[in-house]
Amino acid sequence: MSLSEKMQEKRNKIKQVALELFAQQGYINTPVRDIIEQSGFGTGTFYNYFNNKEDVLKSLLVDFMDEILTAVHDYYNIEEDLYKRFIESKRVVIEVFARNEALAEIYSRVAGISENIDHCFQEFEHRFLLFSTRNIQYGIEKKVFKDVPVEPVANAILAIMKYAVYKWIVLKEISQVEMMDMVISFHDTLALGLIREDPGSERYPG
Amino acid sequence: MSLSEKMQEKRNKIKQVALELFAQQGYINTPVRDIIEQSGFGTGTFYNYFNNKEDVLKSLLVDFMDEILTAVHDYYNIEEDLYKRFIESKRVVIEVFARNEALAEIYSRVAGISENIDHCFQEFEHRFLLFSTRNIQYGIEKKVFKDVPVEPVANAILAIMKYAVYKWIVLKEISQVEMMDMVISFHDTLALGLIREDPGSERYPG
Repeated sequence: MSLSEKMQEKRNKIKQVALELFAQQGYINTPVRDIIEQSGFGTGTFYNYFNNKEDVLKSLLVDFMDEILTAVHDYYNIEEDLYKRFIESKRVVIEVFARNEALAEIYSRVAGISENIDHCFQEFEHRFLLFSTRNIQYGIEKKVFKDVPVEPVANAILAIMKYAVYKWIVLKEISQVEMMDMVISFHDTLALGLIREDPGSERYPG
Repeated sequence: MSLSEKMQEKRNKIKQVALELFAQQGYINTPVRDIIEQSGFGTGTFYNYFNNKEDVLKSLLVDFMDEILTAVHDYYNIEEDLYKRFIESKRVVIEVFARNEALAEIYSRVAGISENIDHCFQEFEHRFLLFSTRNIQYGIEKKVFKDVPVEPVANAILAIMKYAVYKWIVLKEISQVEMMDMVISFHDTLALGLIREDPGSERYPG
């Protein structure tokens, strides 16, 4: 193993330990010394990789958010039907949350906790909204979707997904299946108003 | 002033001081001794009214949530047109947030902070969702709305409002006017799919 691989491994170990502690006892209730002790490394090693506890949180969130954006991006590349894209890309996102319970819980609980974390969410949400608005805008150009204001719809799509995840992992009011059903059903209803039924539409682009 | 009025006044004073401190420096970063010092009362007085800092937060949130629910309830009593109700009741809610900036910020930042606060949000959201689902259900029965699954739509309505408030007061990405426009525009689009256009509908009940 090279030096840089060893460093990467240590960094990942610290993140993994922090993830488990944040999920178990909450981010606020986890002192940095717990992370250091559980990782088995010394204090100096921790501070070689991270400035503080928030820095570890940010690193975990950025990885998770990248996984979500990559999943949407990859799905868009394999599915060209705009209606299917509109509905099924949300299934892809919810599946990322569903298979990462600890990260989903941290994501749902730490929004608003500090300005640094605010910026982290802001950047992710900008990129996510860009995917959505572009896809809907493209559907409008292709006359598959009606010419509605795009931004509010894109924001609502992000909002219902965040809220469904919160109901599942924080409030524990719904199961994974119910979370998925809620998001898909809402998009079906939204699509009732969005999809043009006239013959001018080109549902399959290109 | 009666004894109970004096007690109510002291209680309100503590809440008001806490509200300002939470908004200025954040809930997590406000020690209970700051609230006690700024209120001008002794430690004993504080603990006559509240068990701890979280208790004050809960009391502030419950008042605010009641104000929101009362505003929706009152609006439903004066507006019978189901389409107008569907759109304009959201304007009423956003107006409550807009005129209570400090509470809106606290509301947006503390969700997920502890189980006690989770329960507080949960109760409010249940009651809010009940208003929405009943109104949509009634619209379906009156054949004003299409027969769509109601719960996911009600959840999305709550979600977009929470998200618009968060973008306004936490991320500071949109103005009050843009927050309102986002919510109203989304409901207009959603209504495109929800409203039945056939003559069997009774838009004005009763």
